[in-house]
Amino acid sequence: MKKIRLGVIGIGNMGSEHCRNLAAGKCPEIELAAVADVREDRMEWARHELPESVKVFPSGRDLIRSGECDAVLIAVPHYLHEQLAVQAMSHGLDVLCEKPISVEAAAGRRMIRCAATSGKTLALMFNQRTNSVYRAIRNIMQNQELGAIKRMSWIVTDWYRTQKYYDSGSWRATWAGEGGGVLLNQCPHQLDLLIWLCGMPVKVQAQCHEGKWHHIEVEDDVTAYLEFGNGATGVFTASTGDLPGTNRLEIDCERGKLICEDGKIRCFRLGQNERETCFNSDNPWYQCNAKEEEIQTDGENPQHIGVLNAFAAHLLHGTPLTADAEDGLRALQLSNAIHYSGWTGEMVSVPVPEDKFHELLDKKIAGSTVRKTGDITYESDHTGTGAKAGQ
Amino acid sequence: MKKIRLGVIGIGNMGSEHCRNLAAGKCPEIELAAVADVREDRMEWARHELPESVKVFPSGRDLIRSGECDAVLIAVPHYLHEQLAVQAMSHGLDVLCEKPISVEAAAGRRMIRCAATSGKTLALMFNQRTNSVYRAIRNIMQNQELGAIKRMSWIVTDWYRTQKYYDSGSWRATWAGEGGGVLLNQCPHQLDLLIWLCGMPVKVQAQCHEGKWHHIEVEDDVTAYLEFGNGATGVFTASTGDLPGTNRLEIDCERGKLICEDGKIRCFRLGQNERETCFNSDNPWYQCNAKEEEIQTDGENPQHIGVLNAFAAHLLHGTPLTADAEDGLRALQLSNAIHYSGWTGEMVSVPVPEDKFHELLDKKIAGSTVRKTGDITYESDHTGTGAKAGQ
Repeated sequence: MKKIRLGVIGIGNMGSEHCRNLAAGKCPEIELAAVADVREDRMEWARHELPESVKVFPSGRDLIRSGECDAVLIAVPHYLHEQLAVQAMSHGLDVLCEKPISVEAAAGRRMIRCAATSGKTLALMFNQRTNSVYRAIRNIMQNQELGAIKRMSWIVTDWYRTQKYYDSGSWRATWAGEGGGVLLNQCPHQLDLLIWLCGMPVKVQAQCHEGKWHHIEVEDDVTAYLEFGNGATGVFTASTGDLPGTNRLEIDCERGKLICEDGKIRCFRLGQNERETCFNSDNPWYQCNAKEEEIQTDGENPQHIGVLNAFAAHLLHGTPLTADAEDGLRALQLSNAIHYSGWTGEMVSVPVPEDKFHELLDKKIAGSTVRKTGDITYESDHTGTGAKAGQ
Repeated sequence: MKKIRLGVIGIGNMGSEHCRNLAAGKCPEIELAAVADVREDRMEWARHELPESVKVFPSGRDLIRSGECDAVLIAVPHYLHEQLAVQAMSHGLDVLCEKPISVEAAAGRRMIRCAATSGKTLALMFNQRTNSVYRAIRNIMQNQELGAIKRMSWIVTDWYRTQKYYDSGSWRATWAGEGGGVLLNQCPHQLDLLIWLCGMPVKVQAQCHEGKWHHIEVEDDVTAYLEFGNGATGVFTASTGDLPGTNRLEIDCERGKLICEDGKIRCFRLGQNERETCFNSDNPWYQCNAKEEEIQTDGENPQHIGVLNAFAAHLLHGTPLTADAEDGLRALQLSNAIHYSGWTGEMVSVPVPEDKFHELLDKKIAGSTVRKTGDITYESDHTGTGAKAGQ
């Protein structure tokens, strides 16, 4: 069987986890061919912990040019995604990029243009899409079983982080190093899922509180009001300062509603479209006849391994990706719009003007402080990354 | 035993329900002495359905001047509250006023001034405060068991109404007749409870959608972002167009959180204040040790009867009211601020300027249409008034 020879660029927290999965043979169509990291201690880790066959490079550029790989998985800080993805695709390699696709939507668009020019695949690591719970909701929404969406609410406050987390890397939670806080680091998954399940918001009015719960310069508390193309509205709330946090998604539609919490989906189906009930019923205080049912899922939740396998299968057999660069761009456009609205206090249309966003981000970066707390790489624990629902 | 001789002014939907409760002897310290209504059919109803001892008057003014009553319960359309309350207090009568206290906070303040001048009691019918579930939450918040509030979210979309409801009275859901929609008619309870449980918001950014789900001119869909004095934030969502609706209150505090839904209170208590955990823990991804417990309540939910009994006891024995005019004013100030922010698109401080609010409301009233659908009084069913939680 042909295998994709994959290089992992960036073997910090996330990249090393990918290496362990690949080395353990969890992706039968992928061979972990090489890794790259600019940090000597991470290269040392790779030489000791990974199979001898895995080549170790001191930079992504060297790995890309080595000829050892058919494709790369990019797991470096967000600002470096564009440069490495473009280098890789220009050298004929397919790319699977960690989320977010980049910090600015303009960069995401340049990456997509490069993918089109080079004819290479540019996929996104939106591993939460593999969660059986979200796949089940996606099916219901795609099938229009509940009719048009009217309202949604997603409280995502189960991303708790202590100050220790933010002190763990000098790039963390800085405008210069990361370009944002909970929106860019923790929530790209939920922003993607929100769009995947409910559609793309067209307007945003957001409040982003910077350094509210931690000694950081970026936002760690966000409340965003959303409007969708059909007039539906929504609220997205995220924080890394709530304990115990909540992860509760509610989607209200014309023929019922879904509530996803604690890994369960409760569904209420109406016998009749509410829009008809409203205008046809003789009862001023019409009461609902919808019965609660729990949606059964297939229970599978392959996460990163699922995305990697779909990536390999796409390259080898032409089957669908879990998420592509356009998905990555949309999630980032929504993220940028939330930031932009928070910074300006204005209700904004999505996407926001890329040049003005760049200007405002640049001002933030100009005032950014890089703290000297060392650059520790945590190798443990990815369970905190919102995967709880559905596990 | 001395009894308060009570007059009920306005015996439409709500007023006639009060009369039935009083006539059934559910308030042992109150004698239903008189009722008033300008509508002949309602007077006819009173003559047939209420005890013969109950005097029937063709106006509130006549009832107030009759000398038959010690106190009045005002249950007429909102715009008339001020005039009747002031008349009653000026004639030496104590007043229990239906919610909202009025349409404009300025009127509420004038009513409070009249109460102070006359030395009479001005109480508010915030019957939801008697619900054992909300009383239990109030206790926990007042005792500071969970420490300072950090975030709240209240989705109150279980106020479903069909078009038939809005067509049932010419004053309903018009700026001229009612002065607002879901905020003024359905949600005064929740706005009062929100303040009672979480404190008074100091800032509001709201979206009010007018006639979104019904053929009405006022708002039937509201999403409001709130900020409290200590920096805590919140979201309040209300609608009369969601089916099945949701009534879910979440309050996050430094030492845990409360979730109130389906008449149950789930509580999560932390062993340590989160603010200490954040800065003292060595674990970047600290996980929560809070166990879920269900808060037990006394199960009592006397609603309107409880408010009436407390009103009588206050007048006879000096015991506390369920809610007073200041509570009514605060709830209306929050309501006015949500309207004001929705109309202007601005983030506003609470309370908003009363003269500017008046100006904006006047413009709405100038464009108001009074529909000719008759003035039916529904006599059935008060279960839809949000009392579900806790029953």
